[in-house]
Amino acid sequence: MAGERTLNDKSGRAYPDRDDLSRFFEPSRVAVIGSFKEGFFGGHVIVKSLLEAGFKGNIFPVNPAYEQVLGLKVYPSIKDVPAEVDLALIMINARSVMRVAQECSEKGIRALVVVSDGFAERDEDGARLQDELVGFARKRGIRIIGPNTAGVVNTANGFNPCPYEAGYYRIKSGPVAICAQTGMVNPQAFPYPMLSTGVSKICDFGNKCDLDECDLLEYLEQDPRTAVISLYLEGIRDGERFFELARRVTAQKPVLLLKSGRTAAGAKASASHTGSLAADDRIIEAVCSQTGVVRLENFRELFEMPKLFAFQPLPEGNRLGIMTFTGGVGVLAIDEAAKYGLRLTTLGARSSRVLDKIFPGLGTMPVDIGPAMAAVREAFDHYPDILGTAMGDGRVDALFNVLWANPSGSIIERYVEAYEAVRNRIRKPLATWIYGPNPATIKALGERLEGMGFPVYETPESAVKALGLAWRYRNMKESAQASTEQG
Amino acid sequence: MAGERTLNDKSGRAYPDRDDLSRFFEPSRVAVIGSFKEGFFGGHVIVKSLLEAGFKGNIFPVNPAYEQVLGLKVYPSIKDVPAEVDLALIMINARSVMRVAQECSEKGIRALVVVSDGFAERDEDGARLQDELVGFARKRGIRIIGPNTAGVVNTANGFNPCPYEAGYYRIKSGPVAICAQTGMVNPQAFPYPMLSTGVSKICDFGNKCDLDECDLLEYLEQDPRTAVISLYLEGIRDGERFFELARRVTAQKPVLLLKSGRTAAGAKASASHTGSLAADDRIIEAVCSQTGVVRLENFRELFEMPKLFAFQPLPEGNRLGIMTFTGGVGVLAIDEAAKYGLRLTTLGARSSRVLDKIFPGLGTMPVDIGPAMAAVREAFDHYPDILGTAMGDGRVDALFNVLWANPSGSIIERYVEAYEAVRNRIRKPLATWIYGPNPATIKALGERLEGMGFPVYETPESAVKALGLAWRYRNMKESAQASTEQG
Repeated sequence: MAGERTLNDKSGRAYPDRDDLSRFFEPSRVAVIGSFKEGFFGGHVIVKSLLEAGFKGNIFPVNPAYEQVLGLKVYPSIKDVPAEVDLALIMINARSVMRVAQECSEKGIRALVVVSDGFAERDEDGARLQDELVGFARKRGIRIIGPNTAGVVNTANGFNPCPYEAGYYRIKSGPVAICAQTGMVNPQAFPYPMLSTGVSKICDFGNKCDLDECDLLEYLEQDPRTAVISLYLEGIRDGERFFELARRVTAQKPVLLLKSGRTAAGAKASASHTGSLAADDRIIEAVCSQTGVVRLENFRELFEMPKLFAFQPLPEGNRLGIMTFTGGVGVLAIDEAAKYGLRLTTLGARSSRVLDKIFPGLGTMPVDIGPAMAAVREAFDHYPDILGTAMGDGRVDALFNVLWANPSGSIIERYVEAYEAVRNRIRKPLATWIYGPNPATIKALGERLEGMGFPVYETPESAVKALGLAWRYRNMKESAQASTEQG
Repeated sequence: MAGERTLNDKSGRAYPDRDDLSRFFEPSRVAVIGSFKEGFFGGHVIVKSLLEAGFKGNIFPVNPAYEQVLGLKVYPSIKDVPAEVDLALIMINARSVMRVAQECSEKGIRALVVVSDGFAERDEDGARLQDELVGFARKRGIRIIGPNTAGVVNTANGFNPCPYEAGYYRIKSGPVAICAQTGMVNPQAFPYPMLSTGVSKICDFGNKCDLDECDLLEYLEQDPRTAVISLYLEGIRDGERFFELARRVTAQKPVLLLKSGRTAAGAKASASHTGSLAADDRIIEAVCSQTGVVRLENFRELFEMPKLFAFQPLPEGNRLGIMTFTGGVGVLAIDEAAKYGLRLTTLGARSSRVLDKIFPGLGTMPVDIGPAMAAVREAFDHYPDILGTAMGDGRVDALFNVLWANPSGSIIERYVEAYEAVRNRIRKPLATWIYGPNPATIKALGERLEGMGFPVYETPESAVKALGLAWRYRNMKESAQASTEQG
């Protein structure tokens, strides 16, 4: 039963039940304990962000030195708050956190986000403060995110208590959850308005003194608004639990993992800044391949790779179609595809005929539109036919499409029309890279296509990689299912 | 003697002398043979581009069906041009190219850029046309770039005969030459106004029927305006010559190489679209490591990696300093650095003291400014001191710096001040990554820093990689020199 899982596990930590974690993302009454001086960091920013993001719950600012902040009454202490509180956001001096946690406990609060730094990541004194805090929290059944965290976001209820000024507050809802052992994924660090998929939840684990990646995975597994999980970790605390959970979650939702501390030097650095130990990278590699977790390689991919999983179907096979304006990119794409087991397909006879009729030689893979564009004035009129034919070909399981955006952007409508025509008709993944001489038209076209649910990538290699990872995930998922059925 | 090198080599091809190649980049009188109908491709675009780019030489459009284009007289045939011509740019139907080449030869023209496609990259008929053209050219001592090329650019003399409408024409002069076996590096395909380094020369080899990477390397070796060479190749035609040349050129100028067709599938595709055979990738790998050629891994790096070589000194050692606002990026950076033999340094005792005095704990590597920024209101006032101390430390050979751009951009001036202070005082490479919630301020800060000669990268990994490649180049260069001195 879920309730029993709040008992301690072997490592002495408490397992959460879902109800515990929902307090962090779906609280009704939130206390903000910190300074309310205006600035780019602090309680003032949290309150402002919650108000601007449209959070409908109650906000209780707490600080004896203030009376009001942004039209809200400030309470001298948490005891003075005239209501039950689901979650306290704490950003005060590390040495004062323990005392405030005790007050929160007395108030019956069972969920704390400790934004404050100066704990295990700082020095031995900080580590002692952290141990003391965790010991107390466990005794009292309190769950903690952090310390040393930029906190959480839930776009479903406007719960965006970002402690740093981000300049924007509302974040589009979408199926991607982004969780990390760093605040680099929180709103002040990444321009979420640029992320076409939107996000469901954001979480910075910080020092992971209590709540960790496994707790989050378990919560997100059940979250109906999360369809893809993107994770950045320096280490995995409970390998056995992660293994079990990851296997279960990936059967439902793709989990993409960027794991740093891969090298000995990186692992050592990780230990010093979060106060936690990084796992041996070979173990992580094995865990990923056995559980269906898709491994990422760099920071940008945390945001870029989920798009394909969020928007597009998985490929049914490994036959990659490529459409391009230039052969050179075709070769780069084929090289990249080979890394993930995708191979360049050949076109069916009918498609070849259709394309060759549009322009001699067009009917071979990669479909290179360059010569036709240069030779035939009306070549762009045929673009929807060309895309439809390539996407519709029974030998194509996934398509990498290269688009040239002309300087004025006058071609954009024709491309949009072509994508519109395949949109609901053909259920195959399509990843796009746009190049050209004018960044503004590249951006405009990209936004149009992503608005229609077609992911656009910043490099040809990343577009192909997204398809490759989708194929890898599909394969892993299938073989995991097969082994489960056998076992 | 240079003159003798126009004799054929073993493979039956002619070696160029410098004079031959200068016709392609420094012509005084240029014929443009093609259509002058307005459109996004063709002779009209070439003439417009030359005029707009400020090319000071004579332009002779040639086409019997036109009288005038953009205020210039159009000559019915090349024979009618009333002057000697250094270079002909040809973009007519492939089947007519041979006849025009003959006319050019009769006119005494010894350099052709054949933009036309439909040669070896198309089919067997095209391959025959190409063979015929090459055979003729060799007999007459004519050199050819192409066919199937987007041509060349020389920023020194405004020679930008881009055959595709790019929407811009003048390109900033700078020390980077970009040469490729694809038109993906020509102005219509890449927004050069965004490239802070500027370029010296651009060249698309096209099908490489005659002029190839070795010819270009030999030319660029002597080009005083080129300090860094960025190359994209699908294959290397004359491995022995490339080896010899690369060794010589890299002793003077870094050569960065992206080689596609790495996989068997990619190599096969390469053969079909350029009509040339790709070399075995292991040979390329060996050639690079023995000649000091720095190998790149993806298309974007062709443009991004030369920046550090163009702007910054090489590192004197492998001790990497890291400054960051967040520990997570530090760990990713250390992982990346390890790939290139860079290792995280420790600070000298004096630097540590200075930094710890600014904020307790600041004086350790990576220098993490995050906690100070959150705790001390005036922390940014110290930024110039912090950067100066880290850069000036005798144990730091190269610095990776992470900057957070606040949403309003109000911090920008303080960063600029800090960079200004180290700019001429400290001769060490500095690579920067900027993150934040607002793309506009990230861009604005990046432009300011690059305007001062500090390269800014789009990802933390690419910033560290640039430093890593610079270290790798310095090492290879040194060991190559040592072996030359011994040998």
